[in-house]
Amino acid sequence: MSAKDGMNYAPEGKKLEPVCKKGDFRVGVIGLDHGHINGMCSGLVEAGAEVTMVYDPDAQKAEAFAARFPGTKIAARREDVLEDKSIQMIASAAVTADRCAVGLDAMSHGKHYFSDKAPFTTLDQLSSARAKVTETGLIWAVCYSERVQNEAAVHAGRLIMDGVIGRVLQVIGMGPHRLNAPSRPEWFFRKERYGGILTDIGSHQIEQFLYYSGASDARVLHAKVANYAHPDYPELEDFGDATLVADNGATNYFRVDWFTPDGLRTWGDGRTFILGTEGYIEMRKYIDVARSPEGNHVFLVTGDREEMISVTGKVGFPYHGELILDCLNGTQNAMPQEHTFKAAELCISAQNAAMRIV
Amino acid sequence: MSAKDGMNYAPEGKKLEPVCKKGDFRVGVIGLDHGHINGMCSGLVEAGAEVTMVYDPDAQKAEAFAARFPGTKIAARREDVLEDKSIQMIASAAVTADRCAVGLDAMSHGKHYFSDKAPFTTLDQLSSARAKVTETGLIWAVCYSERVQNEAAVHAGRLIMDGVIGRVLQVIGMGPHRLNAPSRPEWFFRKERYGGILTDIGSHQIEQFLYYSGASDARVLHAKVANYAHPDYPELEDFGDATLVADNGATNYFRVDWFTPDGLRTWGDGRTFILGTEGYIEMRKYIDVARSPEGNHVFLVTGDREEMISVTGKVGFPYHGELILDCLNGTQNAMPQEHTFKAAELCISAQNAAMRIV
Repeated sequence: MSAKDGMNYAPEGKKLEPVCKKGDFRVGVIGLDHGHINGMCSGLVEAGAEVTMVYDPDAQKAEAFAARFPGTKIAARREDVLEDKSIQMIASAAVTADRCAVGLDAMSHGKHYFSDKAPFTTLDQLSSARAKVTETGLIWAVCYSERVQNEAAVHAGRLIMDGVIGRVLQVIGMGPHRLNAPSRPEWFFRKERYGGILTDIGSHQIEQFLYYSGASDARVLHAKVANYAHPDYPELEDFGDATLVADNGATNYFRVDWFTPDGLRTWGDGRTFILGTEGYIEMRKYIDVARSPEGNHVFLVTGDREEMISVTGKVGFPYHGELILDCLNGTQNAMPQEHTFKAAELCISAQNAAMRIV
Repeated sequence: MSAKDGMNYAPEGKKLEPVCKKGDFRVGVIGLDHGHINGMCSGLVEAGAEVTMVYDPDAQKAEAFAARFPGTKIAARREDVLEDKSIQMIASAAVTADRCAVGLDAMSHGKHYFSDKAPFTTLDQLSSARAKVTETGLIWAVCYSERVQNEAAVHAGRLIMDGVIGRVLQVIGMGPHRLNAPSRPEWFFRKERYGGILTDIGSHQIEQFLYYSGASDARVLHAKVANYAHPDYPELEDFGDATLVADNGATNYFRVDWFTPDGLRTWGDGRTFILGTEGYIEMRKYIDVARSPEGNHVFLVTGDREEMISVTGKVGFPYHGELILDCLNGTQNAMPQEHTFKAAELCISAQNAAMRIV
């Protein structure tokens, strides 16, 4: 569970007060293919949820998960989780291409759904999810953790809402990741299964763009992907980028890649640069390179100052608590449903539009 | 001449030994429309050149320049500089659209030419310059100062040549600039005169891309420009970006803008991120934001380490000395002629291809 290993990265922030009492909100888990499930569930549990049941075809994985979340019953069959009437939400980090099917089943059983990102690998999956939400009125949430589980990202959002940098004109995101290929499961290298680099780790970037710019829609202007240096994994894309323009005129550029060098003390030197009319923000999300291995730094420049704001342990992740309350109260405070789907739509659109460089 | 004022920024680095004796290399100056001429000429003088004559239609500008470079004679007519047989090179920071004409005249009089960037505003100008160089065999040099007059940029080039980050896959450049509109001349806001933001400050970015990636040619894949916030200057583009792919497969993204906030202690928080197969480099060229107002920082991450390398006063600018020697010896060590022209060509191509956002 080293911070050098992105596959099992489970971010921790300031502990916030639970939003509900024990027993108010019960979560069942189906699909443990990606380690993100740990961060997703620990966030929910901290906010007051209970994880009561887990199913994965791999018994070892289910046991490891149950050990991490004491009190979780290991289900013998997928249906046991779906059919448990006491469970209000299904959470899943199944293989990317299978996440939609879990959500459709969850909603058919009257449960909210909390998916690892990326939630979909095709626009057809997304359409079926949109229809299911319309039909059921349930919440299809997606854990875009690079924003909702990073304290710098949360704090930057508040600064922008406060108007500190004026109107947001552009967001540049860099999402480098450490590959560590031997640690990855086989599905991770099959494009039909993981969806392509822009769909996969690009989804964080587009979600951040929509959020920080306050846009409700955007258009992909250009995208590209490459496999520069991993001929042993021909379906891996080790590099991708895209540029978009939003309905409010703000633009976005992001790059994602699998080239984090082993000398970096964390899994990726993620950055976000937000240019506004009255100032700009840089986030060094996971490390302050060559200085501190601690992350969560916001660099703010405005009309009157330069300021470094380090917020590790100071902000927390309000997302999970808001999500629980949204499910309990029928609100959309954690993340509007259409925003969740739009980010997914645009990353698949970028993937589909991408030119292949090498 | 504050560092907060980009128009008169004249970078200083470690003093290097002159490459020639007094009298070996004489420079005449025609056109003082941009303050860059000071940095261009101080670089040449430090390297051993003499600036012997200056002409500008604005007598005040000529006098200020002559005071800054003692021993420089103020010419009454442009022709006096061109016809002075002792002068080997004409340097110019005329209005961007006029720089080509000065160079053609210089070469018609048998002199090498040293142009401020951007050297051209149209592809026709570039064609005429290429033809003139072919005809005369003289050197048409361009001062891409954001690389050749920044010690971090020079040092990064050496690290890359040494293979420290492996094969270069991508260069991301951010070139924000402070506008300070009242300090700018009228031509600066006329697009036909300054050429557009991608041609103007974008030229630095494309030159760096070609240099660090070792590419000899590239293709513009997408570009955009905008005037987001300066309705009083309708022909100003306050934002531009572009992405390119080189003939060797490396790609480039850059953003340039005029939104440096007043709170920043220098004219722009210029950054360059160079992603290689074995590591990456970040340059903080003019400031280490919210930490030090000193620039010239190289952040290097490789297979075994993170390292901050601050090189202010340690590297110098070998470019000007190499340029003098190229003129004296018929070599092309400072910058190959075709590289100089290719960078100019691509920034005009990006400008011509750019979609207008707002």
